[in-house]
Amino acid sequence: MHNKNIRVHSDSVTKATYAAIKRRGVEIQDIAEIVYTMQSPYNEGLTMEHCTQSVERVLCKREVQHAVLVGIELDELAEKKMLSEPLQSIIESDEGLFGVDETIALGAVFTYGSIAVTTFGHLDKQKIGIIQKLDTKSGNGVHTFLDDLVGSIAASAASRIAHRMRDLEEEGETFADIPPVILGPQPKAKKDI
Amino acid sequence: MHNKNIRVHSDSVTKATYAAIKRRGVEIQDIAEIVYTMQSPYNEGLTMEHCTQSVERVLCKREVQHAVLVGIELDELAEKKMLSEPLQSIIESDEGLFGVDETIALGAVFTYGSIAVTTFGHLDKQKIGIIQKLDTKSGNGVHTFLDDLVGSIAASAASRIAHRMRDLEEEGETFADIPPVILGPQPKAKKDI
Amino acid sequence: MHNKNIRVHSDSVTKATYAAIKRRGVEIQDIAEIVYTMQSPYNEGLTMEHCTQSVERVLCKREVQHAVLVGIELDELAEKKMLSEPLQSIIESDEGLFGVDETIALGAVFTYGSIAVTTFGHLDKQKIGIIQKLDTKSGNGVHTFLDDLVGSIAASAASRIAHRMRDLEEEGETFADIPPVILGPQPKAKKDI
Amino acid sequence: MHNKNIRVHSDSVTKATYAAIKRRGVEIQDIAEIVYTMQSPYNEGLTMEHCTQSVERVLCKREVQHAVLVGIELDELAEKKMLSEPLQSIIESDEGLFGVDETIALGAVFTYGSIAVTTFGHLDKQKIGIIQKLDTKSGNGVHTFLDDLVGSIAASAASRIAHRMRDLEEEGETFADIPPVILGPQPKAKKDI
Repeated sequence: MHNKNIRVHSDSVTKATYAAIKRRGVEIQDIAEIVYTMQSPYNEGLTMEHCTQSVERVLCKREVQHAVLVGIELDELAEKKMLSEPLQSIIESDEGLFGVDETIALGAVFTYGSIAVTTFGHLDKQKIGIIQKLDTKSGNGVHTFLDDLVGSIAASAASRIAHRMRDLEEEGETFADIPPVILGPQPKAKKDI
Repeated sequence: MHNKNIRVHSDSVTKATYAAIKRRGVEIQDIAEIVYTMQSPYNEGLTMEHCTQSVERVLCKREVQHAVLVGIELDELAEKKMLSEPLQSIIESDEGLFGVDETIALGAVFTYGSIAVTTFGHLDKQKIGIIQKLDTKSGNGVHTFLDDLVGSIAASAASRIAHRMRDLEEEGETFADIPPVILGPQPKAKKDI
Repeated sequence: MHNKNIRVHSDSVTKATYAAIKRRGVEIQDIAEIVYTMQSPYNEGLTMEHCTQSVERVLCKREVQHAVLVGIELDELAEKKMLSEPLQSIIESDEGLFGVDETIALGAVFTYGSIAVTTFGHLDKQKIGIIQKLDTKSGNGVHTFLDDLVGSIAASAASRIAHRMRDLEEEGETFADIPPVILGPQPKAKKDI
Repeated sequence: MHNKNIRVHSDSVTKATYAAIKRRGVEIQDIAEIVYTMQSPYNEGLTMEHCTQSVERVLCKREVQHAVLVGIELDELAEKKMLSEPLQSIIESDEGLFGVDETIALGAVFTYGSIAVTTFGHLDKQKIGIIQKLDTKSGNGVHTFLDDLVGSIAASAASRIAHRMRDLEEEGETFADIPPVILGPQPKAKKDI
């Protein structure tokens, strides 16, 4: 009989999320670079460090962490041929009309608003930076879910920067005026969804 | 090296979808009963057979089939303790703030419009019929994804009936005037998304 | 020729949002009551003040403010018979299959995750508190969009509380341990999306 | 007192949808061209006529029609300066962080699945064909909602073609084997959501 009362502490979910991404060959830096590529033309004073902090903040969100854990689990199970058919073949071949990968990634990106959603759609087709390298169809390994998850995290972090830029403009400021850490994870007491 | 050119035929995806639902203890009839409970007060002449046909039509949709296959796979892997931690504990305990089950179900129900989405939300809380029995927290087995999938299929089938009712009214007709099969799966040549 | 360079300051958008809700007969208190009704059974120590603060925080979000402004504008234009046909009749009669009201409300609620979405669906059918009074079909005035917007704000504020409860549990605390203001609007420098 | 029992016939909603699009300077052909540009590289035998039929089918969907009517109404009211402030300025200037236009368009495109959603996101950034010309910021008139609606219709029609292609492949056929009308609006008796 399984115990239904086990409670997983949020710290261990956060740790597992970071570990899973790293294990699959993606660095926070890689995701931050996509964000920087997309946002630097429009945001004066934006640095890579702002982008890294924004990515780390996105990775603190429960909704995002759960999406990452489920998606990477499915990629890894598919790589080990441990899924049942026909799902094994569908995921392993990154079948074009299979959309659950996009759906899971969309669930996370949706929490950053409709503009994050369109940015995600753009990344899904353009495959900037690490997303290109992850493409299951051209490379090794199964990354059917991971490439969408990376796109989702990048789109969310980019959307946070666009919103913040707007606030800065109202104050007559640019990103050069704020320390990157302001965009990063909040101390626990102030954590918000 | 895995072969990336395997193509899974849509018939085998359909067959696997029906088999998975049955294997997890849910009959088409069970889902149709939820639809009937929700729709019969508003739809003159509606029979269980109309509801069954509408459920079968929903189950023909690729988007729905993929959601069912992924969700049930995760439930079964969790039951066999084959997921890695902390995902294993999160899914096994149907943790309240885990939302990937709702996200996957929403992806399918969204294809039937915003009214289907609100109906799904309602079912998620009310737990009518078989959904109640599937509740992971009260019963045996892990059905973290399945109960949401059943709600999604029922909400979609109900939404199809509500839309069709509107068309019938314009013609001065009721469901008593149309054979249930009209609501069911289309012959392949006319299949549509 | 219209000037495309006018920039609306975020403070005036916030002010307009509060004014619009009040003008349509809804008090922050009314929305907080829905939140309290839904969340108090599960959250020890929760007070009306926690709920009010959470509603106010939700109302600070740009995505929510824009949804409120558009929805209420359409309700008011419909009341004044200023929309073109057939849209005027569709909105005025709160036509059952019209879903743009749900879509706009969903856009806002989606930013609080999939659990907020299902809570919204539930409220859409149950019509707790002020939502019941707003029902276009039973009362005076056109509130086709407003009732969905109120449901969306309440579902979002409730979802914030559920997530925070989880954090409190991990620290061995309840809502009795935190001042309501922690759930409220953030000082500008820390504002986040 | 307004009459809440007026029922608008679906034919008049369809007619109004086509009229609104035409009035705003967009031809069915313009939307079909976007679809053809996107899909012809992947779909052997695809003609402009297939794309036109697919666009017309999408325009038959209630969810799509309602989105079009609401969006174009708001564009036209903004052009006539008939909205209240600050909404008037926000829509008139196509303010970058305003997302209700994307939300309404997403509501329609979502009914065609998650792949249609990512295609929509792509079009939102790439602005192919007529979408470029509609850009409120560069041209005359207010098309804040219309450009997203056109993207949504094109993405939906393109997604329908991608799904159908998959079915054709399974039969060893291409678009050269099917008359375009098969992709078009269905006779009423078989209409489906």
